[in-house]
Amino acid sequence: MHKFTRSLLTEWRRLGLPFEGETVVAAVSGGADSVSLLLAFSDLGGRKKITNELIVAHFDHGLRGRASEADAEFVKALAMELGLRFIGGKGKIATRGNLEQNARRARYKFLERAATETGAFAVVTGHTINDQAETFLFNLVRGSGRGGLAAMPPIRALENGSETLLVRPLLRWAHRADTEDYCREMNVEPRKDAMNEDPAFSRVRIRKEVIPLLAELNPKVVDTIAQAAELLAEASNSEINTEAEHLPAAELAALEDPALRSVVRTWLGNRRGNVRGLTLKHIEGVVRLVKSRKSGRVAELPGGERVTKSGGRLIFTAGGEVKEA
Amino acid sequence: MHKFTRSLLTEWRRLGLPFEGETVVAAVSGGADSVSLLLAFSDLGGRKKITNELIVAHFDHGLRGRASEADAEFVKALAMELGLRFIGGKGKIATRGNLEQNARRARYKFLERAATETGAFAVVTGHTINDQAETFLFNLVRGSGRGGLAAMPPIRALENGSETLLVRPLLRWAHRADTEDYCREMNVEPRKDAMNEDPAFSRVRIRKEVIPLLAELNPKVVDTIAQAAELLAEASNSEINTEAEHLPAAELAALEDPALRSVVRTWLGNRRGNVRGLTLKHIEGVVRLVKSRKSGRVAELPGGERVTKSGGRLIFTAGGEVKEA
Repeated sequence: MHKFTRSLLTEWRRLGLPFEGETVVAAVSGGADSVSLLLAFSDLGGRKKITNELIVAHFDHGLRGRASEADAEFVKALAMELGLRFIGGKGKIATRGNLEQNARRARYKFLERAATETGAFAVVTGHTINDQAETFLFNLVRGSGRGGLAAMPPIRALENGSETLLVRPLLRWAHRADTEDYCREMNVEPRKDAMNEDPAFSRVRIRKEVIPLLAELNPKVVDTIAQAAELLAEASNSEINTEAEHLPAAELAALEDPALRSVVRTWLGNRRGNVRGLTLKHIEGVVRLVKSRKSGRVAELPGGERVTKSGGRLIFTAGGEVKEA
Repeated sequence: MHKFTRSLLTEWRRLGLPFEGETVVAAVSGGADSVSLLLAFSDLGGRKKITNELIVAHFDHGLRGRASEADAEFVKALAMELGLRFIGGKGKIATRGNLEQNARRARYKFLERAATETGAFAVVTGHTINDQAETFLFNLVRGSGRGGLAAMPPIRALENGSETLLVRPLLRWAHRADTEDYCREMNVEPRKDAMNEDPAFSRVRIRKEVIPLLAELNPKVVDTIAQAAELLAEASNSEINTEAEHLPAAELAALEDPALRSVVRTWLGNRRGNVRGLTLKHIEGVVRLVKSRKSGRVAELPGGERVTKSGGRLIFTAGGEVKEA
């Protein structure tokens, strides 16, 4: 198995995500990041490592005429070649206001619909460590609260209040160069987005001018900045001690959804010693428990383990016999 | 009064520092930042606004031969012209290891000695908002814990365990350009440090290449980054609620010195409605109270106000009659 594919598998496990029986929508722009993600998932499917149904979704923002259409055709052809279902969307993006933001909003709306219509539990995207570092710098320069400097989480709700997850399985380990190398080794030439080269966008200048300049001072600056963002994200969740035997239900319930899931996952990992066999459904069961007003309810975990709520606390009980789920 | 001088006076008051009867050592390199600070303090002295004894200290790192000597002569002549006592120091800086760090260590040791010998309660330096932003970027790029991204405080102990304060009264409002403008308007031409122009130093490249590039994306980027640093500094002190009626003594005692003083000052400001009349001696009295193991002790504040420690808490009591100190 290619190192890239293996790293994806490891991260998928670490995130406690399901390996089978689910549907996943891959958001594929046609660029190296999302294409590498698609190729690696397809490889893991072929090897029966992750057998969820993979659906390829592409949104044509229609902003670059013929080039946009060619991107859509490229992604569709790639999906066919891999034997995967393809869902295309096309939108008219308002060019008033913030073009990037409008495009993003239309794209997420399309992805949400694609996930809902296919019953997918998650949309996966090809965000890399480079995106993490670039986002940090973008928000630092633009000015934003402490939240803007905290790392993007690898899992969160796709939109506010959405039941669909946004999962970024490359975010914590893959560099953009890794995705380009992997595409090359798989003999697939990804598309280049002209908007990714246009210095009218601050993000482009951060990627093409600021980061290279900083890299002259520290060649590992992308990792260093991503690490700083992670530290700041941890700090903002740090009020709840995931090393504790019990979790305070009321404080948990006050957390936003992605942070809540992340705290639950970390705490369960600490109680169990690992996150093996923990699927999204288990995490969701505990989240429901947190949000329920009743005491005494139970969330079942693999191997007879369970979490109960009692006296305002979440309590973990080990199973009599631990089986792998 | 010049706007620069007035801003310095306002900040000095806001920091709760003494206006008379104390000695202050001004660390003056000869550059625009420290020269502007010296000129403004001298102006405030002439106007009887701050009548502390001002002593000019200059450390010759001896790293640039004749230029170093010329800097020292310039600062000495300026001190004489202003009728201020001058203390010069000269050191042999180890060129092994980190030159900037070695130079800084020798300089701080000299300043500490100058303060101790003259009975000064504080050393003041000319750090500006630009230094704040540059330090943030320097630590971000180099990689450092969360502490490295938190803003430099305007007041801290000069060295670990030192009784002398390091006060940076320009840090929160003055840009480097303001210090240059002020020197020009006062008809003083500051010295230029060749080391501040040498691109072999990361700090120099951050100042001369990174910040100008970021300023193309946001002309106010220096303020924006300094603000981010402030937010992160607040976050790391945020466990103690300075809006509360009482402060928990044990948690306070666990704080490092500069953070402890800052929390005490903020809390007193909240309880009193302002920090008028609060001098360093008052803050120190409360700090001693925090560090004392005995209960029932009292720290006196202006106008009969007092802070007592009881039941592990600090309690503020308003005076019967509030006078300005």
